[in-house]
Amino acid sequence: MERFDIPQTAAYLRSIDDVYILIHQNPDGDCIGGGYSLYAVLRNMGKRARVLCSDLIPNRYNFVVPDDYVDEEFDPKTIVSVDVADTKLFGSYDEIYGKRVNLCIDHHVSNKEYAERLLLDSDAAAACEVLYSLYRYLGIMTEPIAKALYVGIATDSGCFRFSSTGSQTHICAAEIMRDFPEINFGYINRQLFEVKSPARIRTEMLLLHNMEYYHEGKCVLIALTESMLKENALDPTETDGYANLTLQPEGVEVGVTMREKEPGVFKISLRLAYEVNGSDIAAAFGGRGNV
Amino acid sequence: MERFDIPQTAAYLRSIDDVYILIHQNPDGDCIGGGYSLYAVLRNMGKRARVLCSDLIPNRYNFVVPDDYVDEEFDPKTIVSVDVADTKLFGSYDEIYGKRVNLCIDHHVSNKEYAERLLLDSDAAAACEVLYSLYRYLGIMTEPIAKALYVGIATDSGCFRFSSTGSQTHICAAEIMRDFPEINFGYINRQLFEVKSPARIRTEMLLLHNMEYYHEGKCVLIALTESMLKENALDPTETDGYANLTLQPEGVEVGVTMREKEPGVFKISLRLAYEVNGSDIAAAFGGRGNV
Repeated sequence: MERFDIPQTAAYLRSIDDVYILIHQNPDGDCIGGGYSLYAVLRNMGKRARVLCSDLIPNRYNFVVPDDYVDEEFDPKTIVSVDVADTKLFGSYDEIYGKRVNLCIDHHVSNKEYAERLLLDSDAAAACEVLYSLYRYLGIMTEPIAKALYVGIATDSGCFRFSSTGSQTHICAAEIMRDFPEINFGYINRQLFEVKSPARIRTEMLLLHNMEYYHEGKCVLIALTESMLKENALDPTETDGYANLTLQPEGVEVGVTMREKEPGVFKISLRLAYEVNGSDIAAAFGGRGNV
Repeated sequence: MERFDIPQTAAYLRSIDDVYILIHQNPDGDCIGGGYSLYAVLRNMGKRARVLCSDLIPNRYNFVVPDDYVDEEFDPKTIVSVDVADTKLFGSYDEIYGKRVNLCIDHHVSNKEYAERLLLDSDAAAACEVLYSLYRYLGIMTEPIAKALYVGIATDSGCFRFSSTGSQTHICAAEIMRDFPEINFGYINRQLFEVKSPARIRTEMLLLHNMEYYHEGKCVLIALTESMLKENALDPTETDGYANLTLQPEGVEVGVTMREKEPGVFKISLRLAYEVNGSDIAAAFGGRGNV
């Protein structure tokens, strides 16, 4: 594994072709914005590319996919991963591509260094913040690319709310807004952070109503069961973000979310209000802390 | 009324003393951050100042008030208003000071031009964005001032979510974060945008549950009654922000919030998802559209 900087990564991107871009399972705004913006950049450079994800892209991110995106199957010469800390997160693609990743672009301090080349900035709030610097260096920035990057930066930083947000995160947003005033950022933010389906509103109310408090309210627990998904007719690609509900009550330090993946089998997510180390908690239970 | 620019306003601030700073009733993060930061700047310049508000400052903004703030009564020589579009918003102070405002610093396009001097930037997402440029020009910026400005900018822009957020809004945040890395912005954002009291969570659930849909769901209505406030033991200074709930459901264009001020008398607030002109709607009913 070799650590790459921005100029090295730019030179490498110029040298490759026929690229499969892998993003993580349960895709979020950052890997979707990162993956499809990289597709657009590579196409702009005259190269063939394709974005691969083991799960469906949630409908609300459809506008991030470039209008001219072609999901063309070909024999890839190069595998690039974006926003993927561990090949396990490739899901069903781990077995095929997990051991042959040529370049990984990421911002997770927990990155497993599985790729031949790694561009990692763990100070960045989003993989898209790293990609923003890379594309600026390459001199490639179009409206669809800027929009995809904004989506990644805004979603992974909790719309500039989380403590991961840095001065540079705001600089990226400021420059994108300055250079692409025709993008309707208010509309995008509303779709990403405000609008909820009736099923989602019902489910959130149910979770809040059934929230369990432990340790004098410092720890809260919510459980999202298969029957709740079915009864409320939730779109299965729209089940992310519930874990954030656990941090709403005053005084909470640790929020635990149980999500039923198959009957009786739950995925546990932790949300931490302050400086509690989630990896330590997860490790104590044999988990990875990639929460 | 004379329109002032930043250098004129800076020169004027240098020339005055014994200042009462007026902010608007139902104070929000922007007028609180603006008012108390201006207090700190004037004190830094060796002047006497005091912040006046006709309503109590909500508890969650207490940290914005400088530690050395002294609420000293004196005979004011100068009246400065911050973030107040109309003297009616002075509440009980309108009668005393409404006709003698020497300087108004604001960002509302609807500003009534009631002051002798007006520094107005209607492109700014917050009065604190205007003040940021002013204090930079004056060369006065300390940690409490920066923190107060960040609170104003973040709250009035919906944490950089609303369409009022511009490139310059992000630049202000980026520079404040760069220059004052010791401020815990993640903690502040959590307190401002995430944490809710049990009473608030109960009330929000009730409002969502009772939400009424009109015009095929394009218009929704919620009503916050006195009895709901009492039954849920809501702090009367913590009743802002409920109107934003109306814009959550998919497909909503206009959200109407009725808030009972006294038995049977309701204040109506409008929230508009897109380019609907709220002032037109309010005017049709004889209102001001200052929603």
